[in-house]
Amino acid sequence: MKTGFVFDLDGTLIDSVYQHVIAWSEALTSEGLSLPISKIHRKIGMSSELFEKQLFKELGGVSAETMTRVKERQAEVFSRQEPQIQPLPGASALLEALNEAGIPWAIATSGSPEATASNLRKLGVDSAKAKVLTGSDVSQGKPEPDVFLASAERLGVPIERVYVVGDSTWDLLGARRCHALGLGLKSGGVGEEELQRAGAIRVYEDPADLLDHLDELATHPK
Amino acid sequence: MKTGFVFDLDGTLIDSVYQHVIAWSEALTSEGLSLPISKIHRKIGMSSELFEKQLFKELGGVSAETMTRVKERQAEVFSRQEPQIQPLPGASALLEALNEAGIPWAIATSGSPEATASNLRKLGVDSAKAKVLTGSDVSQGKPEPDVFLASAERLGVPIERVYVVGDSTWDLLGARRCHALGLGLKSGGVGEEELQRAGAIRVYEDPADLLDHLDELATHPK
Repeated sequence: MKTGFVFDLDGTLIDSVYQHVIAWSEALTSEGLSLPISKIHRKIGMSSELFEKQLFKELGGVSAETMTRVKERQAEVFSRQEPQIQPLPGASALLEALNEAGIPWAIATSGSPEATASNLRKLGVDSAKAKVLTGSDVSQGKPEPDVFLASAERLGVPIERVYVVGDSTWDLLGARRCHALGLGLKSGGVGEEELQRAGAIRVYEDPADLLDHLDELATHPK
Repeated sequence: MKTGFVFDLDGTLIDSVYQHVIAWSEALTSEGLSLPISKIHRKIGMSSELFEKQLFKELGGVSAETMTRVKERQAEVFSRQEPQIQPLPGASALLEALNEAGIPWAIATSGSPEATASNLRKLGVDSAKAKVLTGSDVSQGKPEPDVFLASAERLGVPIERVYVVGDSTWDLLGARRCHALGLGLKSGGVGEEELQRAGAIRVYEDPADLLDHLDELATHPK
């Protein structure tokens, strides 16, 4: 049975969730706004449009100008931390193992094309060869399943046989909505039970742990 | 039945967990070391001695000099973020409501006396009047239950009737070990199921949510 993998990027292959969280928190504080940081954390992984919509809904009636300044400040704070961001353990090895086994994979991220390009360089992924879909490739981002469906099509694997690998509940909700097979990784800071409850059929520590258990999920087709 | 509350501070009354996490991550990176950030997150809340012991065990064989530099750098990075740190929603109101109801409370933290003093100021707590125990008041910090037992004694409430309120699994493990009643708060970024599994008999969003449900836990003695 042919299978394929669709990976989220931030928190799943790259250790960048906490930097995104802190950058949003600092940006809000700089405008005299505040939201408990754990609530920002649990929104990471949604499409940027939905994230901002939810954030500002919870803040209650913030002006468009303030919203723009918060977003600019977030990007500024994040870019200061960006050079320190590293791949998660086993991320590159996992992608390489899939290549060697002839199991197709793609990356489906809510990140911008620029941030994605930088993350792919850190992973040593050749962006000319790899199948990478960002938020700008589909009209509706996560937890809408469009980006997973488009990835499955690129892989040539029916969505029901695709593993969607993610660290956020939004990846897993999206996977459920299109009947893909959700796999959770704890590396984004969301715990095992929370990922299971969001729909993960299996939960692993990080990419290295998933690589250790690859044989449980996919038989090498060659 | 007389009851009392013993509160953790970081992540329970003050929104500081993510800043501690990022500061440790930056400090490790500055020494060329790295640990997935979610793993640092799940260690927060232990006594500082145990935290450092576990951190450096996972890193495997780091010299004492490097350890010292990492700790200094962590303190430096954290102190830059410190002015932005704010109380969690409802924290001050909850303590005030307990005062008004005549229900005794104490704070039991793994933080240093200096960090604790700064946090108490932010909460508007008079440190001369409040019962506050830090890591330096007991020989063994969390998840050893010593600091909860010492707090219960200061409150004059049997430990079996004391609610230990915390955001980390270490608070809840410590509570179980001394047969206190553990209450979990999600405000430190650990999810509901993970807190329950660690021993929380009830889980709330943050101090404001606990305040909303106070009548379920303690009847006003006056």
